[in-house]
Amino acid sequence: MAKTPWKLHPDRALPAEPTQRTIAREIYESVAALPIVSMHGHIDAGFIRRNDAFGDPAELFIIPDHYLVRMLVSQGYRHEDLGVRPLDGDSSYETDHRLIWRRFCENWKLFRGTPTRYWMEHELALVFGITDEPSAATADAIYDQLSAALATPEYRIRSLFDRFNIEILSTTDAPDSDLAEHAALAAEGWGERVVPTFRPDGIFYPDRAGWRAAVRALAARNGSDITDYASFLVAVQERRLAFVAAGARATDHGHLTADTTPLSAADAQRIFAQALVGPVDAATGEAFAANMLFESARMSVEDGLVMQLHPGVQRDHSDAIATAFGPDNGFDIPLPVDYTRGLQPLLNAFGLDPRFRIILFTIDETVYSRELAPIAGAYPSVRLGAPWWFLDSPGGMARFRELVTETAGFYNTSGFVDDTRAFASIPARHDLARRIDAGYLAGLVAEHRLTLDEATETAVDLAYTLPLTAYARRDTAAAGAAATIPAPGERAAL
Amino acid sequence: MAKTPWKLHPDRALPAEPTQRTIAREIYESVAALPIVSMHGHIDAGFIRRNDAFGDPAELFIIPDHYLVRMLVSQGYRHEDLGVRPLDGDSSYETDHRLIWRRFCENWKLFRGTPTRYWMEHELALVFGITDEPSAATADAIYDQLSAALATPEYRIRSLFDRFNIEILSTTDAPDSDLAEHAALAAEGWGERVVPTFRPDGIFYPDRAGWRAAVRALAARNGSDITDYASFLVAVQERRLAFVAAGARATDHGHLTADTTPLSAADAQRIFAQALVGPVDAATGEAFAANMLFESARMSVEDGLVMQLHPGVQRDHSDAIATAFGPDNGFDIPLPVDYTRGLQPLLNAFGLDPRFRIILFTIDETVYSRELAPIAGAYPSVRLGAPWWFLDSPGGMARFRELVTETAGFYNTSGFVDDTRAFASIPARHDLARRIDAGYLAGLVAEHRLTLDEATETAVDLAYTLPLTAYARRDTAAAGAAATIPAPGERAAL
Amino acid sequence: MAKTPWKLHPDRALPAEPTQRTIAREIYESVAALPIVSMHGHIDAGFIRRNDAFGDPAELFIIPDHYLVRMLVSQGYRHEDLGVRPLDGDSSYETDHRLIWRRFCENWKLFRGTPTRYWMEHELALVFGITDEPSAATADAIYDQLSAALATPEYRIRSLFDRFNIEILSTTDAPDSDLAEHAALAAEGWGERVVPTFRPDGIFYPDRAGWRAAVRALAARNGSDITDYASFLVAVQERRLAFVAAGARATDHGHLTADTTPLSAADAQRIFAQALVGPVDAATGEAFAANMLFESARMSVEDGLVMQLHPGVQRDHSDAIATAFGPDNGFDIPLPVDYTRGLQPLLNAFGLDPRFRIILFTIDETVYSRELAPIAGAYPSVRLGAPWWFLDSPGGMARFRELVTETAGFYNTSGFVDDTRAFASIPARHDLARRIDAGYLAGLVAEHRLTLDEATETAVDLAYTLPLTAYARRDTAAAGAAATIPAPGERAAL
Repeated sequence: MAKTPWKLHPDRALPAEPTQRTIAREIYESVAALPIVSMHGHIDAGFIRRNDAFGDPAELFIIPDHYLVRMLVSQGYRHEDLGVRPLDGDSSYETDHRLIWRRFCENWKLFRGTPTRYWMEHELALVFGITDEPSAATADAIYDQLSAALATPEYRIRSLFDRFNIEILSTTDAPDSDLAEHAALAAEGWGERVVPTFRPDGIFYPDRAGWRAAVRALAARNGSDITDYASFLVAVQERRLAFVAAGARATDHGHLTADTTPLSAADAQRIFAQALVGPVDAATGEAFAANMLFESARMSVEDGLVMQLHPGVQRDHSDAIATAFGPDNGFDIPLPVDYTRGLQPLLNAFGLDPRFRIILFTIDETVYSRELAPIAGAYPSVRLGAPWWFLDSPGGMARFRELVTETAGFYNTSGFVDDTRAFASIPARHDLARRIDAGYLAGLVAEHRLTLDEATETAVDLAYTLPLTAYARRDTAAAGAAATIPAPGERAAL
Repeated sequence: MAKTPWKLHPDRALPAEPTQRTIAREIYESVAALPIVSMHGHIDAGFIRRNDAFGDPAELFIIPDHYLVRMLVSQGYRHEDLGVRPLDGDSSYETDHRLIWRRFCENWKLFRGTPTRYWMEHELALVFGITDEPSAATADAIYDQLSAALATPEYRIRSLFDRFNIEILSTTDAPDSDLAEHAALAAEGWGERVVPTFRPDGIFYPDRAGWRAAVRALAARNGSDITDYASFLVAVQERRLAFVAAGARATDHGHLTADTTPLSAADAQRIFAQALVGPVDAATGEAFAANMLFESARMSVEDGLVMQLHPGVQRDHSDAIATAFGPDNGFDIPLPVDYTRGLQPLLNAFGLDPRFRIILFTIDETVYSRELAPIAGAYPSVRLGAPWWFLDSPGGMARFRELVTETAGFYNTSGFVDDTRAFASIPARHDLARRIDAGYLAGLVAEHRLTLDEATETAVDLAYTLPLTAYARRDTAAAGAAATIPAPGERAAL
Repeated sequence: MAKTPWKLHPDRALPAEPTQRTIAREIYESVAALPIVSMHGHIDAGFIRRNDAFGDPAELFIIPDHYLVRMLVSQGYRHEDLGVRPLDGDSSYETDHRLIWRRFCENWKLFRGTPTRYWMEHELALVFGITDEPSAATADAIYDQLSAALATPEYRIRSLFDRFNIEILSTTDAPDSDLAEHAALAAEGWGERVVPTFRPDGIFYPDRAGWRAAVRALAARNGSDITDYASFLVAVQERRLAFVAAGARATDHGHLTADTTPLSAADAQRIFAQALVGPVDAATGEAFAANMLFESARMSVEDGLVMQLHPGVQRDHSDAIATAFGPDNGFDIPLPVDYTRGLQPLLNAFGLDPRFRIILFTIDETVYSRELAPIAGAYPSVRLGAPWWFLDSPGGMARFRELVTETAGFYNTSGFVDDTRAFASIPARHDLARRIDAGYLAGLVAEHRLTLDEATETAVDLAYTLPLTAYARRDTAAAGAAATIPAPGERAAL
């Protein structure tokens, strides 16, 4: 990566206290250049396959970034003012992208203290070589510089993929995806670099508007009739195997709660049949979705796909925003989650099975020390994902280590997972995570609770080794026979 | 403010680490002398108008301070021992105020590590020039010194108002207040310095003992008959307008929960009619109160009063204390609050309206990162109030910034709000807040995440600009037309 | 205690920042050698009376330690692999203790950042004089060194009792315990050093499997018939008095929730009668248990036993582990607890009574600032116990002070309570607590919020004075007459 231009300080986001900073810098230097393992993200495989250009600065940085848009909206701009296109196709919205960029630059102060500020500084300075701070005065010049860069081949996604040193990147894909883009990438030798992830939320909530269409799409893609719950399960299973064949490591589940209570086959069939012909209420939909988490775990035991669970967000908190602009527009608000009771059915059934792996994410920090760390510190199938969404921030990541490590250790966590739809921010996010983990480890060294060698080894594991091992598809031949369990030491070291 | 006597260290409550302390001191120095904006408090307007004396040291510092009383009670004193008068008028209680003062001084160690300790040190040393630490040995001498000072005109409230450099102070007033004291103050030219706040809790909970009397008082003051829900709403609206005319910026709502679900007019009328003639149960009362939060927001859109919400405290946890001494005696205990679901009806209806402003307070820290910061970081109407009550403390304020800033930034917070009934503690509280914010900002500078200039500008905004702008009565002509929304940059800068 | 061998740094677990470390070291030095007051633990009195040997290293350190076992299980070992004997008596399990020890040493890295690491380092280095770090290479040599030491009289429990400078240790005992071991210890002059604690959970949950047997055992031990709720209460009362006679200071209650709602005598009798003859459901069992907390408080007012409450853990989260190995095998997962509403019935009845004392523990950190500190900062009967279980860790203890002190002060906490079944870890745990409290106090000194003298006095109180006073059996003659309440100053100073 290029030398630091602008004013990015080499010690940014490392501890301020000199003793710890010196140690943290040494730890950070041992991980700064490691390849990026990006096991959970929202980049479109087709975009990579086609090696598309990123568009102009507003298209790259602002319009699709719900972090940025929501902050500007929180201070009085409307989505339309920032170029977000209303769904109705009728209403007007700002199409002057230079003006949108200017609005962002003029409001640079709003991002003080936020991770967006850190990421943007990193991207502007280190990815694009911008030497000025965004402001009303500099907005146009920066826009021009960015536009010029974005027009060159060096700023196409595949060039950045190499420049960013991304070893592997997972996409997120609907069950009815034909995976054709992944196949095309594989044909070009990119099959180990870009892998799909099976994300079935759309077919798991029968109370939601698009459910019937999603089930029909699933049937169509699978080439099977889905007439009842049994044929639905078979189709899900078959699509999972198609994903496995396409290189998938994992499934991903974004549920409202962590409930995993299974239904009897009869109850599941009854709900399924009812939903095929008419509406079901939200509680029924949630019960079916909980059952499908349980079923997904059962399938993971059979096909080895690592299960990811992201519960606890009330999507589309504002009806007006959802109606006008659709989902993912910055108005998703977290809720408390009950992991201890919610996960008990699933963990009781599969939690000790060596063929099973589940990675848990949360946006509710109160469960770190109370529920998640004790669960991950006991069940061998459980790993804790990186701090998610709003918590993917300097303080958020530091608190995760503080609240989780003492009970779960480092080796029951997944290492860093970026979960972004903003490709150009990937190195910034990984860099920040490596700095924060280096700072946390430096604190342990400075307090004489860890040696520097141990801290450095741990930092490498968190940045690189653990994401690879946590997301390695499980060996389903392991089958519970004790002799076939890899020794923990091996697994942790891989 | 006078030079530091006693042992108050100029760097008290700034970060211990030398790099950060140096930066923090520089930031603090740029805000230390700013005027005090005190937009939420419990000082009596009549007290200011009459320019009353504060009484003796026990009357000023101990008997009315529920922080102090509860701590001494928690270690074995009874309220009576501390001069709190039982409601029955019969029971005896300590009337020797010198003895009460001595009890406090003898137990000075109990306050170690508490904000009471910080405030008292500041008040004794900087407001009263006391040079000794409270103890059994010094109690009497300090009592005499304080008594002598309190007998002078310099220690009347208006002199202190000037000396404390209070630019504006909001009182808290019942809907049936005649606002005569505010009018008298205005006639003396103090109308911009002392403004009322509309606090209607007493008329919003029809299950509570005093409700019918409060509604009657409202009708009497408004000069209108209140015979049903419709005439009740009209009276509320008219009193709000009277408050607006008297200079009010805001309303204040201290509810048990954050529920804002509106009732149908028929249901509201049914409950109202029932409550006029007989008891309603707590759940019904809570449903009516939730409806009135919704109605209050609707009224705010019309009259521009900023809405403040303080939910989540179980008042009068001890029946014995409540029965013997009445409310506000240190036995109010917080509860978890559900802001995400509770506020959804209100925010769905008014949250995007540029005429609306709501400031949210909490005493439940678990919602900072999970609910409040995401809500304030999206809805343009929402600002987060300062850490409230028990959390108005060095650690409480630091955690607020740590848990809120990364998602909501600084500019979706209200700046400091002191919420005190102890007039002499106002400068101490603002001073402490300025130190803690300076320390937090210094950490960002030391970690190279903010420049010193940015940090200093932010500190000034938090101490002075943001409280003024957050509590500015809304321009109700803004009416939702995009063109009339002030640009966020302007708004943030005032 | 011996000079530090190995690599234990004298400043371990003190703050990294030099200013604070210097102060912390000075504070720590004033408490490091204080006697150990261990008021809550799980050491068997018979083990002490017989002065048993501890067995081999795996028997001492691994097999019975659910912290250690769960961490190794979380990375793929089975309980059997670690020598935990299955209940069925049939299944095989590892009996090669040297191999078990090796498995632990090979996986030393898993414990990085955990309190287990701190405790083990302290025990190996300072108790046993081991000079090598555990690893695959050193496992056998350490095993031999430990075995040799454990065979000597110096490593019998009574020698270690003296060497550890344990002034008093509480055991935990079932209501039907004959207390014969305590009597025998008393006969040897150890009556003030080893005292029993009354732990009646087994007879409070009538929905649980062993309840009828436990009630029968209670009746048998008490020599009374238990035919109904009334005779049950009498038997409980009488056993408590037997514990008082044997030197008990306290009772201990490990409940699922903090509910303390009393039942009418008729309801309690109805449940009791039903449970004697058949099953009751979990909700009924929980209601009865809540009632028994209320009754226990009433009894404490009469006999002066300090009440301890540890709620909020879902025991035996994994059915498979519970079925195979029984309770206390690392699969207990915390839950949120509602103290504010749960404790209200009990505190309303007894919370202001000077004859009553309750010590509250939590494993749910979210209640520290929201519920526990406000409760302890008001009710004179309440003290807050030390951070419990997973939270008995450097960060856990630091967060306790940060979140509790500003509202409750230091003197409404119990000082350190170790709650361990691992005797050899007692000094490590107390040493760590003393370091963390020294660090917290040093921060207050460095921020000029406390003088060094005050901090040092507070550290001594937290390490030594407060556990003794918090667990002193209450004077039941105090009887609520104000004149007989000891002045708080006296009580705090004792």
